Amino acid sequence: MQIYADNAATTRMSRTAIDAMLPYMEEIYGNPSSLYSIGQRAKEALEQARSDIAAVIGADPREITFTSGGSEADNQALLSAATLGKKQGKLHIVSSAFEHHAVLHALKRLESEGFEVTLLPVHENGIVDVREMEAALREDTCLVTIMTANNEIGTLQPVREIGAVCRAHGVPFHTDAVQAVGHLPIDVKADNIDLLSASAHKFHGPKGVGFLFARRGVRLTNLIEGGAQERGKRAGTENVSGIMAMAAALKEAAAGMAENAARMTALRDRLIAGLSEIPHSALNGDAVRRLPGNVNFCFEGIEGESLLLLLDDKGISASSGSACTSGSLDPSHVLLAIGRVHDVAHGSLRLSLGEDATEEEVDYIIRSVREIVEYLRGFSPVWRDLQSGKTPFIL
Amino acid sequence: MQIYADNAATTRMSRTAIDAMLPYMEEIYGNPSSLYSIGQRAKEALEQARSDIAAVIGADPREITFTSGGSEADNQALLSAATLGKKQGKLHIVSSAFEHHAVLHALKRLESEGFEVTLLPVHENGIVDVREMEAALREDTCLVTIMTANNEIGTLQPVREIGAVCRAHGVPFHTDAVQAVGHLPIDVKADNIDLLSASAHKFHGPKGVGFLFARRGVRLTNLIEGGAQERGKRAGTENVSGIMAMAAALKEAAAGMAENAARMTALRDRLIAGLSEIPHSALNGDAVRRLPGNVNFCFEGIEGESLLLLLDDKGISASSGSACTSGSLDPSHVLLAIGRVHDVAHGSLRLSLGEDATEEEVDYIIRSVREIVEYLRGFSPVWRDLQSGKTPFIL
Repeated sequence: MQIYADNAATTRMSRTAIDAMLPYMEEIYGNPSSLYSIGQRAKEALEQARSDIAAVIGADPREITFTSGGSEADNQALLSAATLGKKQGKLHIVSSAFEHHAVLHALKRLESEGFEVTLLPVHENGIVDVREMEAALREDTCLVTIMTANNEIGTLQPVREIGAVCRAHGVPFHTDAVQAVGHLPIDVKADNIDLLSASAHKFHGPKGVGFLFARRGVRLTNLIEGGAQERGKRAGTENVSGIMAMAAALKEAAAGMAENAARMTALRDRLIAGLSEIPHSALNGDAVRRLPGNVNFCFEGIEGESLLLLLDDKGISASSGSACTSGSLDPSHVLLAIGRVHDVAHGSLRLSLGEDATEEEVDYIIRSVREIVEYLRGFSPVWRDLQSGKTPFIL
Repeated sequence: MQIYADNAATTRMSRTAIDAMLPYMEEIYGNPSSLYSIGQRAKEALEQARSDIAAVIGADPREITFTSGGSEADNQALLSAATLGKKQGKLHIVSSAFEHHAVLHALKRLESEGFEVTLLPVHENGIVDVREMEAALREDTCLVTIMTANNEIGTLQPVREIGAVCRAHGVPFHTDAVQAVGHLPIDVKADNIDLLSASAHKFHGPKGVGFLFARRGVRLTNLIEGGAQERGKRAGTENVSGIMAMAAALKEAAAGMAENAARMTALRDRLIAGLSEIPHSALNGDAVRRLPGNVNFCFEGIEGESLLLLLDDKGISASSGSACTSGSLDPSHVLLAIGRVHDVAHGSLRLSLGEDATEEEVDYIIRSVREIVEYLRGFSPVWRDLQSGKTPFIL
């Protein structure tokens, strides 16, 4: 059985998205900035894509700027808010301890430029406390940036409440919604979102394309200077075919969203129940307030990497956390943020189901993980020490 | 007859490039940062693409960083050199007056941050003088950035000589080679290039992907912070399918380069000869030291935009200059840089031939342009004033 259970890392492009892409490679390949027909047809398509995408999140088309992906969108959002902040003498930013590295590393750079960053705790359940967020706001806060759904443990943040508090205090609110767009309903107006980042390849669109929503009145600063594309806010010939595929994928995802979410939530809970039966295992993050397809577990006494390789042998693609940091020996900053100790965080497994997942597959995953965890514990010195009582169990 | 003569704006994707792309959308769609097979296969492909691309320009694979295109590569190159310059207290940059806006606008931002920029003249032939370049170097020069081939008038800069002078003075040299890569031979070692920008859609690859060459020892600064992709120098899940298509397109372009360049040069010269017969017309830029497919003319007494629209009616896609600034009412900064006055610069036409151009097409273009210029002059008040001697002819 071949099961791709790493949809949080990337997704397979949908047939709809591929079909939407192809005409813009060979046929309507003109530069949208060109006056002649083939360029103008590309331009019209691009604007249709912008409208389609805007509609899904309740935005105005002019509020959508196409980027090369979620990381670029995050970087531009933070740069824009920081530029405005600097002008107003506001150099304080509120974020959370388990943001994606695209946000955390961009914040690091801003710190080196004189900004002060408050990272909110995310507690054992992996959820920011709105009152703590409000308490962290200062007179000189120029931005709150908190992700909609965590990329490792899938926990959903109280975005609407955070947005309302930010709006009441007049502080711009950015959310990295890369894991949420196309999977959960988002309404930028109702949610009081000022800036939002999204990435096409997380919802069955292509890699290398994403978008940044910026509410009217929130002035963007260019990350990429040059031509007048994207209302002068993002230079470079538009990735027309990629954008067309992104719009098609998002429309498709939006159309099936409610049904997919319900089905995936049931499968997720079945998977969580099955894996919970493995002794000394624990679900990471809130059991309910999490993405429909996300399951993230720690297993005491094993190494996450060995688990992944043996799962791969059984045809199951999974990850220990963010793909962006795999290969790193450091334990996940997300798991540390929810209070897992180093040793336990090393034995983590993220399974992110796709829309086409089945009960049969979920059961196969449960059986496989159980077998492999038992097998690995069989020759783990850490597990032996735990068994013998030499070191205490944590989970 | 349908003739696409705006290959400097963008190109049609080649079948080879499209075929190279497709498997990485549906089949090998894994995230290259993932440990499991489908991710590792994507990773291997990515590294093969990096090697293939490096080989074409005489670089080491580790010197290639994938970007979302030429503008991003230009911006990152300039940011990187400026960051190093700042550390060394060197805040002077040498460039030319007719660089692409991705360079000129990035320079503007650096000026606002305290850098001083010397823009070299490009003279009537559209070519930088190496002695003038050398004379502009100062003790505090941290970067020379001069394009390989101009995007509007196609003139080729003495890159190898510029590189040699820069190397002798210990000043990093960046070249925006977006128009040249895939069309003319480039050898980063022989040419003494430290940083080079390229864009796939200019050589029949996809839009939204490009690369930055940075010689070993030239430290890049991230434009996009986040994950550890691209040796930590460019965050964001890699655009695997786009990169595969770029590599395939570049290999194809390199294989046919000598033959294509010879054939296109002959067609270009035929086109130049034909258009030169139109009274009061003039070729912009050097007649010989220019890109094989580039023809750029000024016609006195007409508006470039009307000319383009009527050419479009005849099935010919062309432009008045850079697609990145079309829609702008300002005359081309490139044409002003080579000394064309405003009125004349407004009546410009860029024709950039593709590899598949034919003599028959060239002759059709010549006939069409001649007819349209005559037609437009027929009711142009500017032309009437020129004819009557009220205002003097310039061309």
